[in-house]
Amino acid sequence: MTIVEDAQKGIITEEMKIVAKDEGLDPEFIRRGVAAGRIVIPTSPYRQVKICGIGEGLRTKVNASIGVSSDIVDADMEVKKAQAAEAAGADTLMELGTGGDFLAIRKKVIDSISLSVGSVPLYQAFIEAARKYGSIVDMTEDELFKATEDQAKLGTNFMAIHTGINNITMDRLKAHGRYGGLCSRGGAFMTSWMLHNEKENPLYANFDYLVEILKEHEVVLSTGNGMRAGAVHDATDRAQIQELIINSELADRAHKQGVQVIVEGPGHVPLDQIGTNVKLMKEMSGHKPFYMLGPLVTDIAPGYDHIVTAIGASVSASYGCDFLCYVTPAEHLALPNLEDVITGVKTSKIAAHVGDMVKYPDRAREQDLAMGRARRDLDWQKMYSLAIDPEHAKEVRNSRAPEDSDACTMCGNFCALKIVNQNYNLAK
Amino acid sequence: MTIVEDAQKGIITEEMKIVAKDEGLDPEFIRRGVAAGRIVIPTSPYRQVKICGIGEGLRTKVNASIGVSSDIVDADMEVKKAQAAEAAGADTLMELGTGGDFLAIRKKVIDSISLSVGSVPLYQAFIEAARKYGSIVDMTEDELFKATEDQAKLGTNFMAIHTGINNITMDRLKAHGRYGGLCSRGGAFMTSWMLHNEKENPLYANFDYLVEILKEHEVVLSTGNGMRAGAVHDATDRAQIQELIINSELADRAHKQGVQVIVEGPGHVPLDQIGTNVKLMKEMSGHKPFYMLGPLVTDIAPGYDHIVTAIGASVSASYGCDFLCYVTPAEHLALPNLEDVITGVKTSKIAAHVGDMVKYPDRAREQDLAMGRARRDLDWQKMYSLAIDPEHAKEVRNSRAPEDSDACTMCGNFCALKIVNQNYNLAK
Repeated sequence: MTIVEDAQKGIITEEMKIVAKDEGLDPEFIRRGVAAGRIVIPTSPYRQVKICGIGEGLRTKVNASIGVSSDIVDADMEVKKAQAAEAAGADTLMELGTGGDFLAIRKKVIDSISLSVGSVPLYQAFIEAARKYGSIVDMTEDELFKATEDQAKLGTNFMAIHTGINNITMDRLKAHGRYGGLCSRGGAFMTSWMLHNEKENPLYANFDYLVEILKEHEVVLSTGNGMRAGAVHDATDRAQIQELIINSELADRAHKQGVQVIVEGPGHVPLDQIGTNVKLMKEMSGHKPFYMLGPLVTDIAPGYDHIVTAIGASVSASYGCDFLCYVTPAEHLALPNLEDVITGVKTSKIAAHVGDMVKYPDRAREQDLAMGRARRDLDWQKMYSLAIDPEHAKEVRNSRAPEDSDACTMCGNFCALKIVNQNYNLAK
Repeated sequence: MTIVEDAQKGIITEEMKIVAKDEGLDPEFIRRGVAAGRIVIPTSPYRQVKICGIGEGLRTKVNASIGVSSDIVDADMEVKKAQAAEAAGADTLMELGTGGDFLAIRKKVIDSISLSVGSVPLYQAFIEAARKYGSIVDMTEDELFKATEDQAKLGTNFMAIHTGINNITMDRLKAHGRYGGLCSRGGAFMTSWMLHNEKENPLYANFDYLVEILKEHEVVLSTGNGMRAGAVHDATDRAQIQELIINSELADRAHKQGVQVIVEGPGHVPLDQIGTNVKLMKEMSGHKPFYMLGPLVTDIAPGYDHIVTAIGASVSASYGCDFLCYVTPAEHLALPNLEDVITGVKTSKIAAHVGDMVKYPDRAREQDLAMGRARRDLDWQKMYSLAIDPEHAKEVRNSRAPEDSDACTMCGNFCALKIVNQNYNLAK
């Protein structure tokens, strides 16, 4: 019996209790969420994972994506990145390698961390086809499902699967065109395959078979967003929304089979379209957990796309997005290095918190309140302990140590907080 | 005759023409904005400045604040910071030193750049009083106005003046209290002085005299936000809004005398209160240019407050905030160093652009559109030229140079854009 089926029968599983405790919520709330498909809890029969719930009513979670490319294949470095992402506070990890020995590298990464791990199985299927036959378009349908099953058996906990790119979606894409092309690798592979072979997407055509595999190996389906815009000018276009509609239908079908489902969203989205995207997705999908890749609110800041994403992700989380895929400073320029991964996680954690302050004003602002008071009282040890990155905060202050131990070098003797504390009492 | 009086008489001055050209707008639009008080253009009879308009209908502008503190007095370093801020794209600079020889350091900084320079004259008055009498509360009223006049004569273009902290505002502050105390140095000085001397704020009581000084020396009045929250839990409280009401009244009075006016706002503001703050300010003040300090949307990320500010500032600009004061990574921890200043400016420039994309969808998204197309076409030279920081973007890509010159190491041979370009045509 899957966790969804347990929940629907009224059973509160061990995983639901862990999530409830972690979030400070009632286990019955978690059970209802899992039963209705509003909450997922990735697990695996093949490995112990750190249990983490994703969905409505829970803290916004952050995913870090890593993985080698055809240019840079260094499995040990990917292990280091995975461990650094976990240490920096990532809630899940996606191993999205497109080079080297797929299963061996993924196994190594999975074994090195306790987080739930996600993958995109079609990368392996298409790229192995390119190696074997000379072109991605010659991949066979069997190879696609075989790669999915092989990765599931490694203990992969969730999979982004591009189910919503069907002939209907393709018609919208071709009719409307794109300023910025397609930025989704899965989208690029699958649309190229469909056009060349004049065939329906096997993941759509044989969706029930796909669901069987996922159910057997307890994999969470994350319906891929192959039509996400790669440029803000393509955001919220017909192809993207068509894919969302198809994915929402399929998400219901999978959920009815007892499989947990996340729905993925964009991408590059200007600030004023983020709320619409989140609300539309939630309505369309019956409030499945929403996983946004970014969103990036401008295209003109390569090198600073972690900041561009912090802006978009804060706003998307505040509107109800449940799960944020980080973006690193290397986005659009290079494969992220170790430092980029750490920066990406920390930046997205800030965005998740800022969103949660809006989602859950009662419970998600307590740390801010304590920090406000610690600042008023010039209690530096307390400030450090409340900071999301205490070591970094200490480093900055101590690099320019103040003469007067209770202030900092910004204002020195003329610290506003200190002056007020000396002259009158405002505290509450 | 002041620029406001010129505008009200129908005269389009040279400065208005420069702003119109810079913004791609009709000079008559600028004239009407200046006449009505919706736009300010800082100038000075004492120095040539780079002309830059601030207000409704114009691009969102970014201010960088620098200045020594009592702990660190290095005038040459402040000159370097000022020049670096200008080079990084700051639109204005505030010299907010609270240590050393006030006029000498400010003169040195002013002479080193072409940007409009702002100051907070009461810092000098209070701190010189502390040096002379042993306490800030012993400052005389004459000393306050004298410091204002001395700084104006240096060619200071705009001044943050804490006019709105009067007895009415103080009553609200004392009755309500604060979780995070007062973070405004001007607010801390002035409230301490008022309480100790049992006197009304001289800047409020003698507002007309203040306006005479500003008018004589062509200084833009920026009504200071001494009651801004220093903790998100104090945001949008009665003291802050009371001060806004008083400042809005005074802003009208100054504008009627022909003086240009900006109204300052917070501060620490949670994401869901930013829109309210901007709309309230605009209504309250009759749509004067709004200058926000941040806003910072969470208190728990010291060391990353430039990112916290990018989130808040993007949203505030999208709602109509006209002028953003940058925040550096050193905020709440130390006096910013040269690198912090540069990072602060670049981050706030991104936020200003993201806000402008919402304010002006027709004219502020063109660079994004060109970038989307350059990415689709894998035209790296064009991408660099469109990036807000071309050198940094080049550096990141080249630090991990791809095998294949048209892609990057993120996806290597399996670049989505490249695959689509090879297989079918989507371009528009």
